[in-house]
Amino acid sequence: MKKTKPKKRRTSVSKKVGMPPGSIIYVGRERTENASIELISYTSDSFSKNEYDNCSSLKKSLVADAVNWINVDGIHNQQLINQFEAEFGLDHLLLEDVVNTNQRPKVEEHNQYLFLSLKMLSYNELDQDIDNEQISIFLGSDYLISFQEKSGDVFGSIRERIVGSKGQIRNNGNDYLFYSLIDSIIDNYFLVIENVGNNLEELEEEIFNNPSQNLLEKILKNKNILLNLRRSIYPLRESINKLLRENINFINPETNKYFNDVYDHTIQIIDILESYKDIISGLKDSYISNLSLKMNQIMQVLTIIATIFIPLTFITGVYGMNFEHIPETHWKNGYWFFWALTTIIVIGLIIYFKKKKWL
Amino acid sequence: MKKTKPKKRRTSVSKKVGMPPGSIIYVGRERTENASIELISYTSDSFSKNEYDNCSSLKKSLVADAVNWINVDGIHNQQLINQFEAEFGLDHLLLEDVVNTNQRPKVEEHNQYLFLSLKMLSYNELDQDIDNEQISIFLGSDYLISFQEKSGDVFGSIRERIVGSKGQIRNNGNDYLFYSLIDSIIDNYFLVIENVGNNLEELEEEIFNNPSQNLLEKILKNKNILLNLRRSIYPLRESINKLLRENINFINPETNKYFNDVYDHTIQIIDILESYKDIISGLKDSYISNLSLKMNQIMQVLTIIATIFIPLTFITGVYGMNFEHIPETHWKNGYWFFWALTTIIVIGLIIYFKKKKWL
Amino acid sequence: MKKTKPKKRRTSVSKKVGMPPGSIIYVGRERTENASIELISYTSDSFSKNEYDNCSSLKKSLVADAVNWINVDGIHNQQLINQFEAEFGLDHLLLEDVVNTNQRPKVEEHNQYLFLSLKMLSYNELDQDIDNEQISIFLGSDYLISFQEKSGDVFGSIRERIVGSKGQIRNNGNDYLFYSLIDSIIDNYFLVIENVGNNLEELEEEIFNNPSQNLLEKILKNKNILLNLRRSIYPLRESINKLLRENINFINPETNKYFNDVYDHTIQIIDILESYKDIISGLKDSYISNLSLKMNQIMQVLTIIATIFIPLTFITGVYGMNFEHIPETHWKNGYWFFWALTTIIVIGLIIYFKKKKWL
Amino acid sequence: MKKTKPKKRRTSVSKKVGMPPGSIIYVGRERTENASIELISYTSDSFSKNEYDNCSSLKKSLVADAVNWINVDGIHNQQLINQFEAEFGLDHLLLEDVVNTNQRPKVEEHNQYLFLSLKMLSYNELDQDIDNEQISIFLGSDYLISFQEKSGDVFGSIRERIVGSKGQIRNNGNDYLFYSLIDSIIDNYFLVIENVGNNLEELEEEIFNNPSQNLLEKILKNKNILLNLRRSIYPLRESINKLLRENINFINPETNKYFNDVYDHTIQIIDILESYKDIISGLKDSYISNLSLKMNQIMQVLTIIATIFIPLTFITGVYGMNFEHIPETHWKNGYWFFWALTTIIVIGLIIYFKKKKWL
Amino acid sequence: MKKTKPKKRRTSVSKKVGMPPGSIIYVGRERTENASIELISYTSDSFSKNEYDNCSSLKKSLVADAVNWINVDGIHNQQLINQFEAEFGLDHLLLEDVVNTNQRPKVEEHNQYLFLSLKMLSYNELDQDIDNEQISIFLGSDYLISFQEKSGDVFGSIRERIVGSKGQIRNNGNDYLFYSLIDSIIDNYFLVIENVGNNLEELEEEIFNNPSQNLLEKILKNKNILLNLRRSIYPLRESINKLLRENINFINPETNKYFNDVYDHTIQIIDILESYKDIISGLKDSYISNLSLKMNQIMQVLTIIATIFIPLTFITGVYGMNFEHIPETHWKNGYWFFWALTTIIVIGLIIYFKKKKWL
Repeated sequence: MKKTKPKKRRTSVSKKVGMPPGSIIYVGRERTENASIELISYTSDSFSKNEYDNCSSLKKSLVADAVNWINVDGIHNQQLINQFEAEFGLDHLLLEDVVNTNQRPKVEEHNQYLFLSLKMLSYNELDQDIDNEQISIFLGSDYLISFQEKSGDVFGSIRERIVGSKGQIRNNGNDYLFYSLIDSIIDNYFLVIENVGNNLEELEEEIFNNPSQNLLEKILKNKNILLNLRRSIYPLRESINKLLRENINFINPETNKYFNDVYDHTIQIIDILESYKDIISGLKDSYISNLSLKMNQIMQVLTIIATIFIPLTFITGVYGMNFEHIPETHWKNGYWFFWALTTIIVIGLIIYFKKKKWL
Repeated sequence: MKKTKPKKRRTSVSKKVGMPPGSIIYVGRERTENASIELISYTSDSFSKNEYDNCSSLKKSLVADAVNWINVDGIHNQQLINQFEAEFGLDHLLLEDVVNTNQRPKVEEHNQYLFLSLKMLSYNELDQDIDNEQISIFLGSDYLISFQEKSGDVFGSIRERIVGSKGQIRNNGNDYLFYSLIDSIIDNYFLVIENVGNNLEELEEEIFNNPSQNLLEKILKNKNILLNLRRSIYPLRESINKLLRENINFINPETNKYFNDVYDHTIQIIDILESYKDIISGLKDSYISNLSLKMNQIMQVLTIIATIFIPLTFITGVYGMNFEHIPETHWKNGYWFFWALTTIIVIGLIIYFKKKKWL
Repeated sequence: MKKTKPKKRRTSVSKKVGMPPGSIIYVGRERTENASIELISYTSDSFSKNEYDNCSSLKKSLVADAVNWINVDGIHNQQLINQFEAEFGLDHLLLEDVVNTNQRPKVEEHNQYLFLSLKMLSYNELDQDIDNEQISIFLGSDYLISFQEKSGDVFGSIRERIVGSKGQIRNNGNDYLFYSLIDSIIDNYFLVIENVGNNLEELEEEIFNNPSQNLLEKILKNKNILLNLRRSIYPLRESINKLLRENINFINPETNKYFNDVYDHTIQIIDILESYKDIISGLKDSYISNLSLKMNQIMQVLTIIATIFIPLTFITGVYGMNFEHIPETHWKNGYWFFWALTTIIVIGLIIYFKKKKWL
Repeated sequence: MKKTKPKKRRTSVSKKVGMPPGSIIYVGRERTENASIELISYTSDSFSKNEYDNCSSLKKSLVADAVNWINVDGIHNQQLINQFEAEFGLDHLLLEDVVNTNQRPKVEEHNQYLFLSLKMLSYNELDQDIDNEQISIFLGSDYLISFQEKSGDVFGSIRERIVGSKGQIRNNGNDYLFYSLIDSIIDNYFLVIENVGNNLEELEEEIFNNPSQNLLEKILKNKNILLNLRRSIYPLRESINKLLRENINFINPETNKYFNDVYDHTIQIIDILESYKDIISGLKDSYISNLSLKMNQIMQVLTIIATIFIPLTFITGVYGMNFEHIPETHWKNGYWFFWALTTIIVIGLIIYFKKKKWL
Repeated sequence: MKKTKPKKRRTSVSKKVGMPPGSIIYVGRERTENASIELISYTSDSFSKNEYDNCSSLKKSLVADAVNWINVDGIHNQQLINQFEAEFGLDHLLLEDVVNTNQRPKVEEHNQYLFLSLKMLSYNELDQDIDNEQISIFLGSDYLISFQEKSGDVFGSIRERIVGSKGQIRNNGNDYLFYSLIDSIIDNYFLVIENVGNNLEELEEEIFNNPSQNLLEKILKNKNILLNLRRSIYPLRESINKLLRENINFINPETNKYFNDVYDHTIQIIDILESYKDIISGLKDSYISNLSLKMNQIMQVLTIIATIFIPLTFITGVYGMNFEHIPETHWKNGYWFFWALTTIIVIGLIIYFKKKKWL
């Protein structure tokens, strides 16, 4: 289980050092599956869906006057990426960003298309960690190409809505599809946050009941998830803001209000992130001070025991000495005198501890 | 008691994931009461008040040349919200914000109306926590619609002033009503802050008298209240600032000075929040260092007891040994010699502790 | 003594909740003295001074072509405030700020006058706390009205300079008087800072000599004073900056350089505040780590005592056993053998502690 | 090993104090090797490479209409630097920056050339520290001069690409070479970061398994590496940004997109730096709280042992006393009664500890 | 030694409170020496140097078409300052700043001169503290007046260069002299920083070898030096930036590049300050966690000793009881049985401690 984390981080730049700048090299985890390409074309009336395993015949298959959504699963296939560069005239440096899965979310407008790179995050219940996948989208005038790292049902609900003609998606252009993709990704951010929120609540209760070392590890894990989310959401907010500020050709002014909404969501996520950060730092403080409290309790027990018995043991020592003349040992009720003395000392100490509020 | 907090946070986005964007779905707590609609129409001379339970005949009931205040209790009724969209031409995305009770406070100007969403916070003495309610206001040219999450007397004093024609409210337009609603909400923020302030004072005294684990929980609770307040007040300040900067059609320039005043209040609240944050961090420091101090005291008692009795017990051990020739045991006054020795050691140690300032 | 702090904070907004916005309600401490009004009129040649107890004949008493300084002690008299509103045409909302002693320092230019609200802070040696008083100033074209919360000698030295015709004050207009008032208030800020500085030095020495719980309370008290000062000085700096940036009619361009000087002072105070904040956080660190050091010393003493005597006591136990055949007990010099063994163990442990640097 | 760090920091300004401003004085480590100068000239067709040991004949050797890259190893040779000033008309103050190895990264445009100073960082596995080397580049219209502190293979891969005509380098001008140099340096930053990332992962595991003092030293070492990286990357980002914002004559507009890419990389590094900073502070917290946890465990063992045996030892003391009448000692089964009593106490205490969750 | 610090801070504003604004009152340490005035006049060809003890004949002594540098040692002489006001027409408020040694560094351009106030800091090896001296410079068209707090060799090396005609100083105007003065002061900042750097290194080693209370005091002392430096350098950077941004008449455009260089130096110092701040906070963390580590070690020793001997002592207690029938005491080899039991327990505990990694 633990080994997965190191692996993730090691998806690594070292492969690229020493290469000519602008080299298209996939830096993510090794993968062996074939890449798959799916083309969905739709208008309000028509709908078609086809799968391809290379790019050559793809451009001819685009349906005119329809929304053409090309979804590519598997960016580890370098050849395929090169084909896209040739076929659709996508920029070399941007394709480099597509395969560099450590890319920072960003938006760039080119003559032929709008490019957006962002992170798909989803909470993995099993590992109690988040899965991180880079999505890159090229929005051209008559097509939308999305590159995914892994095959998966990220956009499942969007496909359903297209197929079932639910909502407004079939009545709108590819800019609305573009918006829907972003929106569904951000909805997943909310799910991640909600999971973290639930974790924090559970941790809060556990900390006050039973502070064990485990807890700090869990706190830090949730903090790292927030850090991860933060590294995804801040640049995304900037990107969406850029989309809103600048007049982007590929986005219909009427669709703009949807991006406004998305922008509001990114700010809301950031707000929650910041308050969770504060909550986590509060949890850490609680954890550490509860450790101290527990220590105090342990010390208190030790001190009470020791303070009561050490003097008593001293007295037993006194009457265990072998001096020839210890008067008390010859008293008839010496032994009971000893117990009386002992009882008085114990009662005195208990009163003292009560006063100190240790009992 | 504890269960209420988790529930609140779980008012949750997960219901919305996978839905088409722009779906109007109430994400707050489940509620079963009927929603109620109240229409208050007034001019400086006239006043009328009616209740409705749906929206259909509402628009016709608006009084011309008067201030028409429509107050809606209960945003969980989706049908009702849809009626408002149809009747008053309210924007779909904004109504989505109305029912999404996790919405961040914001202001938006549309052609037909001005939209403001903000949080009503009130201190709940019972839970020692704050109640959080979202208020959304549409200010049109001849109406003001306010949506409340729960029925309640939030705006009671405003109603009284309208009915009793107290203050300037009856002589002013619906922008003044708009201002009065915001003002009364912000007044409640001050009350929340004041309660937190009182709590902090009590905590301060308790910490120096009796630092128990409970206190940290209380400190964190107050910190969370401040965090909550902060998440409401910062975006509200931005919104009010936007109202002031931009020339809003729906607000009379003469009413502007009142919004200036409201703006000053938001800044004042933020100032207090920041200083309370500092005070709370000071309380935490006090709490933790008082734990250490208490530990030191416990250790000191233990050390004094042990340091005094361990050597004495050793001596009793010595004279309790069964060697055949221990000269002292045969002394006539051996036993008194032992007590003299003991007394000297105890006095010496007490002097030592006095010097160390442990006694 | 302790009760004064809660009272201060409770000067409280709760009186205002539910009132129509813009209500003039004094929120400070209850006061019963009569308010007093003093009018000082002076030119370079002439000087007159009169006292009034209401506002009615005041406006007629203003001397033409002279500086007319109206100083009002006691803003708790609501009637009086209302008279000023009527007589001098002062804005209702600003007068609300005058009596709201929790007001944030601010400047506002109106057609008839310039309004400045700021905090008079003075160090109270007795409580080791600061006294906080709100001063509000209206600078009109031919008068300057200053409202003080309490009667007191805040502006004593200015009066002396006017009476004695010291400095440049008699040769300048009411804008110079305005500047002099602000300058004397800021001079008092420096005094407060200096007192805090001295306190910090004393605390520094005490911490390294004798860290007691008391000290943390003192550190936090000084920190709160700085917080208080900060809440006064930051908005004041903004206000002065606004005075400098905007062309204020009521201030002669030649007087501007004096406000430049005041602005420099506010920045200097902020610099010192920031460095004192760092010093205080250093003191807290010292305090807490000195607690740990003291703990270490206590533990060390305990450990040394226990480590030396526990083995020795074990040996006495051994020779105190009642086995029938313990060879050593029958040795002629068994007892001395015991003491030799004891001595060797003690010397060995002392060498060990020396090596550990515990002795 | 430890001595290397002090030496580095002492590369020091004190040599310069008291000198006339603008003195060209090398402040780095003492070096004795000769400086070496290498001139590589290339076009898409031709390629030549020569070495020189002084600057005199260098200018004549530049190939017209080709990219001329002059790489200087060894800035400690003051005479050589002076020759460059004379030959190429490089600014005196800039050459002072070249030899001042504590220079902050910066860019400056002059009439004849563009100047960029930046830091080459590489991770040194041996010391687990980073090597720091200052690179200064003058980009003229027909030459590029790079000054390196040490001879070394920093630009090895670029030389290979030039020689082997790999990538686009031979088809582009000296601005592309300029870009390639910067790009290869930034690639090394990623390597340093990756090493730090790996270190942090290892530390994370060690902290939870075996918190020793060593670890804190290691944590701080990695933090210092990040600090170092930060001091290099922030000003570099500014510099690149300046290159992008301003229209630099020496950079072809077509090459601009590469600098855009470099800029993205600097931001990405900064993002990672910030998140590593958070991770490090998390590690420190873990380390410190694990120390406390270990302390708690130790105390717990001590308390359990003491709490069990101290009462038992008291009982043995009781029955070891020499009173004449201790009834139990005369019981037939007194000894077994003692063991029964002992067993009951031990069982009772174990139940108590179980309840306290100490066992 | 310790008394010097309080004295410094008490150079104090309280002398000024209640005085008319703009009073010229020296607030530094009491001084009794006479002030001395030195006039150095030079061109590239000529050089003259004279001393004066008042200001009256000074203006006539200025050499036309030469650089006239008037250096005043001793600003405590109020009369002298007044003379300068009269002779050179220096502004009253600025002279107030000259004698107010708590002044914040600033620059101001007047019609007749440019005013710059800054702090001369030098490291005092004896106190391990820094000496703080305020330097104020008036740069007129044909003179430069510098006011120093104390006589001293601050500008010694500049005088040497003027006398010896070293560097470019004799060939440039008084703006270059102005630059040289600032440059030599900033060079001293680097020296201070270097000393702090060396101190930090030493502290780092000491902390890991021998954490004593002394160390925290030293850490805080160095932190205070940095704070002091910071309060001097930040406003100086602003001032230099202002010099660069605005077109100052008194500075030749050609000299501007030198001020650019000075500006770079101030930024470099700030960079180092910030990283030293981080290092110091790291040292504090190390110090505190090393205290905990030491505590752990002490506790460990105590626990090992106690855990081994307490059970053994119990056993000796058992066989020291006076029950009539203790079977083991009658065994022939009872005593050796006891030692065997003891040995087994000790070995068992040692194995347990090894497993716990306490040994």
